[in-house]
Amino acid sequence: MRTTIKDIANYTGFSVTTISLVLNNKADKIPKSTKNKILDAVEKLNYHPNQLAVGLVKKRTQTIGLIISDVSNVFFSTLAKGVEDSCRSQGWNLILCNTNDKHERDMSYIQVLANKGVDGILFCMARDSDKKKTEESIQLLKKLKIPFVMIDRYLEEADCSSVIVDHRQGGYAAVKYLLGLGHRNIGCVTGPSGLEDSMERLKGYKKALEEYHIPYQHDFIYEGSYDRESGAGAVDFFAGKDISAVFAFNDMSAYGVYNSLKKRGIPVPGGMSLIGYDDIFFSEILDVPLTTVRQPVYEMGAESVRQLIEEVENGVGARKCIVFQPALIERESVGYGPAYEPGGKPI
Amino acid sequence: MRTTIKDIANYTGFSVTTISLVLNNKADKIPKSTKNKILDAVEKLNYHPNQLAVGLVKKRTQTIGLIISDVSNVFFSTLAKGVEDSCRSQGWNLILCNTNDKHERDMSYIQVLANKGVDGILFCMARDSDKKKTEESIQLLKKLKIPFVMIDRYLEEADCSSVIVDHRQGGYAAVKYLLGLGHRNIGCVTGPSGLEDSMERLKGYKKALEEYHIPYQHDFIYEGSYDRESGAGAVDFFAGKDISAVFAFNDMSAYGVYNSLKKRGIPVPGGMSLIGYDDIFFSEILDVPLTTVRQPVYEMGAESVRQLIEEVENGVGARKCIVFQPALIERESVGYGPAYEPGGKPI
Repeated sequence: MRTTIKDIANYTGFSVTTISLVLNNKADKIPKSTKNKILDAVEKLNYHPNQLAVGLVKKRTQTIGLIISDVSNVFFSTLAKGVEDSCRSQGWNLILCNTNDKHERDMSYIQVLANKGVDGILFCMARDSDKKKTEESIQLLKKLKIPFVMIDRYLEEADCSSVIVDHRQGGYAAVKYLLGLGHRNIGCVTGPSGLEDSMERLKGYKKALEEYHIPYQHDFIYEGSYDRESGAGAVDFFAGKDISAVFAFNDMSAYGVYNSLKKRGIPVPGGMSLIGYDDIFFSEILDVPLTTVRQPVYEMGAESVRQLIEEVENGVGARKCIVFQPALIERESVGYGPAYEPGGKPI
Repeated sequence: MRTTIKDIANYTGFSVTTISLVLNNKADKIPKSTKNKILDAVEKLNYHPNQLAVGLVKKRTQTIGLIISDVSNVFFSTLAKGVEDSCRSQGWNLILCNTNDKHERDMSYIQVLANKGVDGILFCMARDSDKKKTEESIQLLKKLKIPFVMIDRYLEEADCSSVIVDHRQGGYAAVKYLLGLGHRNIGCVTGPSGLEDSMERLKGYKKALEEYHIPYQHDFIYEGSYDRESGAGAVDFFAGKDISAVFAFNDMSAYGVYNSLKKRGIPVPGGMSLIGYDDIFFSEILDVPLTTVRQPVYEMGAESVRQLIEEVENGVGARKCIVFQPALIERESVGYGPAYEPGGKPI
């Protein structure tokens, strides 16, 4: 059992009130010898009332909470590392909560973090959050009056700061790259259709096609769920369609595509070009290192901490949207497409 | 700013003392109408004193803290997921702290978790912890009187429960498998020499060699640090030595070996057999799926939660050592060695 103030009282013989006054620096009228005895006992018995108390008095615990949806997903664990490193370099602590992509856990962990007295929350919403659920989470954060910054999700109506990636630009860059190399029929393995980041990548895909005057074909689009199984499903879905390249909306599903193509004896990039999204570290280990769109995840983590601490310290919520640009990382999984003209210029 | 008890006082017109009595269920002599007004205000202003207070009174917050050393390492993120899922299924909350393998962060996060009033701590020590540092951490946990369970580390003197893997058995199984297939000169890529889990695997290696009456050769042992760079370094170190198989003490360093061999044009397993340790998910995605020793990480996470909650609820620390057995996962990265006799029986 933890040491309580009563233990200090029993140990020293002083009253709880006296001890409480000493611990709260309100002991002007208490003899110094008494104070010292109490402080010695506090030290000796390792009594720790202060943080809870201090948290209530100073209203500051130098602790940030981070809510993520899946710690076993490399995207989020890299983000968490960026957040952690940034917190520590500024003398803040980080506590992390993992929601397994369940909205009700978002709600309960927001409450837990509030109860634990964190000064601010970095919030990566669960993937099953539709508009209504999203609003519910944000309403709770506002009701609890905890400064928060959203990561990887921007909401016009949220009225808070966000740190996001320009996914439309990322999708556009990936597809434009494929088109420039002569691919015309490009399959997509999207994320869940309700997710803004997936929809944005798809918009980027369409934008690039439009620039090349290529009609959008619905049967080149496979709705996945950002996992390896999706990639395998997509390969089945694309079979028999005249597709020369696949754009997977994250690296995990690209691995699924890669493995499934291998099983069918289709080499990458000889038989099919493949481009991913995320640039998680496995992508360069693959036998055919994956060409992908890199999200600056670690840096996003660090930036979101900077923004949140600023808001906590100034006591005012900003409404900033900090946008990171993704970058195309060329490796070896993309080859030339059927429309490629050697020496020809991309449009 | 968060709502304080004073805000409730200002809003309702009642004194802080009255409100405090109501909130602590000590309001026998207070009119029901007053109570209701106060509780309405608490609801309306979203005042949350209770958890901190309740934590002090009930001495239970249904929250566990997990200290891990590197959230971006798949081993730990899988462990965290096991812990999280197990907590949630039992109605407990989990908060996670990441130490980046720094002992001083172990110390500060133990303190943070204590201050936040967690009921117990699952503790994966930082890798830079020598014996003295380890004792320091354990002394702090004991001083704070927080129930704790150690994961992946057992210490005779720690006097607490541990959930560990029998790494000696794991190392033994890997090397015996290689020997059985006719390998005699087996290179090792160890972890840092100070780490018990690495030393145990090495003991398993030696034990298997002894059974085959093969002398231990120090120049077959490369001290790595559980990362891909170690694997690359090991391949340089082994060059020119008559080695037919490599046992990497974790999958990450096995990937480094694999990539580095590929760069040198040495095929796996044709030119070199390779066996890893951990079985992180990427190992089966590799073009040559990695034969490895599986640690039941997720299950260890779940088991450690069960043990910790039991100790929290019974109020007594046990001194149990729960040992998981690792399992050899045969895939495609190991071939026959020069001493293999077709039809011959392994010793």
